[in-house]
Amino acid sequence: MRVIAVIGAGRCDPQTATVAEQVGRRLAEAGVIVVCGGLGGVMEAACCGAKSAGGLTVGILPGNDRADANRWLDIVIPTGMGEARNILVVRSAQALIAVGGEFGTLSEIAFALKLGIPVIGLNTWQLARHGQIEALVKEARTPLEAVEWALSVVGSA
Amino acid sequence: MRVIAVIGAGRCDPQTATVAEQVGRRLAEAGVIVVCGGLGGVMEAACCGAKSAGGLTVGILPGNDRADANRWLDIVIPTGMGEARNILVVRSAQALIAVGGEFGTLSEIAFALKLGIPVIGLNTWQLARHGQIEALVKEARTPLEAVEWALSVVGSA
Amino acid sequence: MRVIAVIGAGRCDPQTATVAEQVGRRLAEAGVIVVCGGLGGVMEAACCGAKSAGGLTVGILPGNDRADANRWLDIVIPTGMGEARNILVVRSAQALIAVGGEFGTLSEIAFALKLGIPVIGLNTWQLARHGQIEALVKEARTPLEAVEWALSVVGSA
Amino acid sequence: MRVIAVIGAGRCDPQTATVAEQVGRRLAEAGVIVVCGGLGGVMEAACCGAKSAGGLTVGILPGNDRADANRWLDIVIPTGMGEARNILVVRSAQALIAVGGEFGTLSEIAFALKLGIPVIGLNTWQLARHGQIEALVKEARTPLEAVEWALSVVGSA
Repeated sequence: MRVIAVIGAGRCDPQTATVAEQVGRRLAEAGVIVVCGGLGGVMEAACCGAKSAGGLTVGILPGNDRADANRWLDIVIPTGMGEARNILVVRSAQALIAVGGEFGTLSEIAFALKLGIPVIGLNTWQLARHGQIEALVKEARTPLEAVEWALSVVGSA
Repeated sequence: MRVIAVIGAGRCDPQTATVAEQVGRRLAEAGVIVVCGGLGGVMEAACCGAKSAGGLTVGILPGNDRADANRWLDIVIPTGMGEARNILVVRSAQALIAVGGEFGTLSEIAFALKLGIPVIGLNTWQLARHGQIEALVKEARTPLEAVEWALSVVGSA
Repeated sequence: MRVIAVIGAGRCDPQTATVAEQVGRRLAEAGVIVVCGGLGGVMEAACCGAKSAGGLTVGILPGNDRADANRWLDIVIPTGMGEARNILVVRSAQALIAVGGEFGTLSEIAFALKLGIPVIGLNTWQLARHGQIEALVKEARTPLEAVEWALSVVGSA
Repeated sequence: MRVIAVIGAGRCDPQTATVAEQVGRRLAEAGVIVVCGGLGGVMEAACCGAKSAGGLTVGILPGNDRADANRWLDIVIPTGMGEARNILVVRSAQALIAVGGEFGTLSEIAFALKLGIPVIGLNTWQLARHGQIEALVKEARTPLEAVEWALSVVGSA
């Protein structure tokens, strides 16, 4: 079982959604389970892509209500733990692909770095100290490249 | 998507394991996803039963290490939250079947009652006040009966 | 530092509130910090009692909003984790005194038994198997007795 | 009740510890409760400073064992939730002062930004997008300045 999380904001513009959809589709084509935070925006687009390729999708929701889940999820985990669910998304995955993203995504990137789980970014946060950006998130240029790098990390099936 | 949790201790005697295995198998035959705490004993037996019928299984682990998961799990969620993961097992399910069980199982029964999620018991805890046992956990006599009652609660597919 | 949790429902009748108030007061008189779930009912009464004796009180809230806290709290921890906060109340304490209580209190009793933290009950849940009540929660007859037993467990200052 | 969190790594160099100690002392002098993650390094230094001025300190531990707590804590909350405790540190405070810090500190900064809780930094992370550093963490030059800014956010007692 290989599991990769796709993280990003619950609302996003169409270009970002297209990128997330492509990431999800490619992951499913490679036989990888897609985990996410279960809501809309990047999460929904990634799940939609994964299901279009017959993949398996898991959504870990912040709230109690499984009605909050996007419609492309096979497994829904309503945590009722609010933003603390972000760490569950991170721990569930062997690698993360961040597509854009706001502060919640930043918290997931931070947890992944803390836990030593590789993060690949597509147009996402950069981290700096003393004015110098540090290469902590590997920046991919295309969805295809992001998925290839993530697959190289998690190994073959 | 219908999801039922099978809860019980991480170690159990062979008779209890057989009961859990039968519960898991019948749930999978009915097309229900089986969620559990991901470890051994009742959890492992229920997952083994579900996989023998081609079902889908989800394990929500207390620790960080997916190597703790039993080998019959399709989806592993390592929470790193210790016993707080019990509430995630409960929230993930539309009904619970408790097979035997120790104090962790009791905490899951309590959360389910708090959240209004039905609990069916097979040789599990009873709750009392002032010396009178209250019928809060519906007590089934056989695995078949437990699964039938659980299915009647979660509805048809 | 000695810490004892007073657990019970967020709404209660006046007699139960009086019991909780006496428990909180006696704990504070003994120099013990009182921790609770931070809301009304038993929690508020216990804190009110503790403050009347100059004690220190800690409330661990289920929600995000510190405005939910009762007015007798010195330290408020808004968890945003819903009922998962119950385990934090348990872990924070060296012993628990349950005053009445509903299903949330039952979950806290279960966690305490799981973790080996002593629980003393005043008119609270009893646990049974096969129709036999098991002496898992030590049942006190008066607030004074409950506090004496709890103090004997946590030791002198 | 005013509460400010001091966040930073569990190990730090002497200069960073001195900064954290000064922050803790000034907060306590202003009558503010200091909350932190309860361990060593920046957390311990801040608590030591706060106690030197007669303040009240709260530590929210990742593990189960209150023996992990530094010796300057009045209230210890052992969460057993691992890194998920970071969000509890953030939610407990009305403002955060980050002193240096590693990835755990970054996750706390992210949560605070998500929740709209002000963060003041002393030699800590910067956040960037497209190579441009964004002014999300207010950067103070001295402990005194950091505390002044934090106090201006949380208001007078």
